Amino acid sequence: MEFVDQAVAARAAAIELAALTRATKDAALGHMADALAAAEPQLLEANAVDVEAARAAGTDESIVDRLALNPARIAGMVQGLRDLAALPDPVGDVVRGWRLDNGARVTQVRVPLGVVGIIYEARPNVTADAAGICLKSGNAALLRGSSSALNTNRVTIAALRRGLETAGIAPDAIHLVEGGREITGDMMRARGLVDVLIPRGGAGLIRAVVEGSTVPVIETGTGNCHIFVDASADLDKAIAILLNAKVQRPSVCNAAETLLVHRDIAPEFLPRALAALAEAGVTVHGDDATRSYSDAVVAATETEYDEEYLSLDLAARVVDSLDEALDHIRRHTTGHSETIITRDAGSADQFVAGIDAAAVLVNASSRFVDGGEFGFGAEIGISTQKLHARGPMGLPEMTSTKYVIEGDGQVRA
Amino acid sequence: MEFVDQAVAARAAAIELAALTRATKDAALGHMADALAAAEPQLLEANAVDVEAARAAGTDESIVDRLALNPARIAGMVQGLRDLAALPDPVGDVVRGWRLDNGARVTQVRVPLGVVGIIYEARPNVTADAAGICLKSGNAALLRGSSSALNTNRVTIAALRRGLETAGIAPDAIHLVEGGREITGDMMRARGLVDVLIPRGGAGLIRAVVEGSTVPVIETGTGNCHIFVDASADLDKAIAILLNAKVQRPSVCNAAETLLVHRDIAPEFLPRALAALAEAGVTVHGDDATRSYSDAVVAATETEYDEEYLSLDLAARVVDSLDEALDHIRRHTTGHSETIITRDAGSADQFVAGIDAAAVLVNASSRFVDGGEFGFGAEIGISTQKLHARGPMGLPEMTSTKYVIEGDGQVRA
Repeated sequence: MEFVDQAVAARAAAIELAALTRATKDAALGHMADALAAAEPQLLEANAVDVEAARAAGTDESIVDRLALNPARIAGMVQGLRDLAALPDPVGDVVRGWRLDNGARVTQVRVPLGVVGIIYEARPNVTADAAGICLKSGNAALLRGSSSALNTNRVTIAALRRGLETAGIAPDAIHLVEGGREITGDMMRARGLVDVLIPRGGAGLIRAVVEGSTVPVIETGTGNCHIFVDASADLDKAIAILLNAKVQRPSVCNAAETLLVHRDIAPEFLPRALAALAEAGVTVHGDDATRSYSDAVVAATETEYDEEYLSLDLAARVVDSLDEALDHIRRHTTGHSETIITRDAGSADQFVAGIDAAAVLVNASSRFVDGGEFGFGAEIGISTQKLHARGPMGLPEMTSTKYVIEGDGQVRA
Repeated sequence: MEFVDQAVAARAAAIELAALTRATKDAALGHMADALAAAEPQLLEANAVDVEAARAAGTDESIVDRLALNPARIAGMVQGLRDLAALPDPVGDVVRGWRLDNGARVTQVRVPLGVVGIIYEARPNVTADAAGICLKSGNAALLRGSSSALNTNRVTIAALRRGLETAGIAPDAIHLVEGGREITGDMMRARGLVDVLIPRGGAGLIRAVVEGSTVPVIETGTGNCHIFVDASADLDKAIAILLNAKVQRPSVCNAAETLLVHRDIAPEFLPRALAALAEAGVTVHGDDATRSYSDAVVAATETEYDEEYLSLDLAARVVDSLDEALDHIRRHTTGHSETIITRDAGSADQFVAGIDAAAVLVNASSRFVDGGEFGFGAEIGISTQKLHARGPMGLPEMTSTKYVIEGDGQVRA
């Protein structure tokens, strides 16, 4: 099917989806999970074709690893769909309500966004995740995955659509958008057909979608996350948080990318911290002051402070004060998650007030900035923009609202 | 000052604004009101220059009327600023909070958007209104008014900035963006410097901003609002609501533009309704069925059902059923406010569930869809988009949120 026909079909399905009860949607998620589990043999077969093609094209093994499925990963996708059924339905939630002086009742109620387009890279689990989250929040989904996962995605989407049919829901609620690069452009300009686009992937993909779309976009995920170790920091906690934020899973957006150290604590903190980082396999890219504490620190260029490494690399700099740390972060932040380690309540307050980001952390690892850790149960991404949703996006963030005004003939004077 | 310098200065001011207490902001609003009141003679003089130039250029008198100030209108602008001081400060509001299993506390708190750009037409009152709303919500304002109001806006902004200075706040919190059309383009592409753009004005202006911006936009105001008179409607209420929604103030976005009448009630309703509309000076543009009830109804073209007249004109059509009405509205709605007049609870429910718009009204005039009528106290516009805010936008809609996570050394397992 052509993209525009898919979008039109999705709009029609969205009208039906908006009216579904929670019970119907939860049953559908169960059928989608069953159908996906039953498709395991075909899924593994299709995925093997994709993986082989990726390897033949010389794709980096870390990307091949993201692309590859196995029975455990498929079981995870299936369980993700089942878990969604346990979450409350955001649609129909009354946000607030009041009575006008003339007696008319006003109610603000959650409604689906409508048709959601998701543009993502070669992670096959996103296909099932995003489809499930969209269904539970009453949205039709146009899923534009990487061409390198095309065979895997086709089998996944076919299974999910069979699940919808078993549940008596129009399968046009979920589409795989196929075709060349120009199709991504069509999605980005499908204002009126697509209600929102959510890019999930690297900074380049996100920038292209944000700058090229006339459809409203929710920007997710780029995280140049800083840790500032204040003069009063507890050194043990600082090192534990630094290692956790950098090393526990370096490839994700809430991992630390830059370390800022107050000059007064640097002589005590940096030798220990740099040794611990080296032991964990982290390459530190530092300024001259940082380099004076260890020969293992390589020289950082100024542009490096803007880098989201997503690897076992860390930029580092010694600053003269909290104000200088705030200034550095303001110039380099991507607005994701920024951390201060301090024992001083005043410093903590000043940092929290002075940072403009989705999340500000005091004495805790930025790895907690995550829908799962927040208890949202499902996450479509972490918004780094200020409009609509900021931070981890759960099911309520996949909705809009409408005002319902019920009167008895009221007119305005 | 060049636009980019204004934007940079506004960003610096925004950091200061975000930290201001309500008391400081309310005092500043008072000083801004005083300064504007004191500038009345210069304001009238500057406005007379603008009005004369507009007349000399052959501008339509209805637009000249919007542009013209008089002591009463200036008093209204001054009072608008004072009224803002009485409203609660949205900044610092805790939206929600909870404790993670590891003991860390999560708080979601309202913060300003940052730098807000407002692009608007020749209504000088918008300048003071928007500046006041931005200040109260902690946002720096880049105000891009019509060149036809330039002299008026210059005097207004200078007065407001003097008020800020008296209050000890950086005057760079408020800027008038001057210059040719290319400056609007610069604003629209100032991603990273401007956090959100809000166009206020006609459909053409809004479309241009929405389609040309890389800065996130909040779309406001276009309203092709429908009234559906169901078979079971109370005819007296239907006629009262129809007249109110069409005639009370035809130039605004929440006025009715299209009447849909159920075929079963048309013979009873339309002769009365068309007579009442004619008496009120309304020209009805109808389909053949509507025209069969009155010779005064002119033939509607299909494109007319997409028109936002903003005048004493009304499109009209007879439909066979509620489903046909829903289908018509879905094809022509701008997502603003849609109304059903009915005595049937089932029809009301079906209409409310079936309409995707900022507001759905049952037996009440769409003129109530307004920040003032909703009790918001201030309104920057009525959002017709689904992201961030939908419907009348008050002070809370001029904010974002951030998560603050406070721990004691917690790391992720």
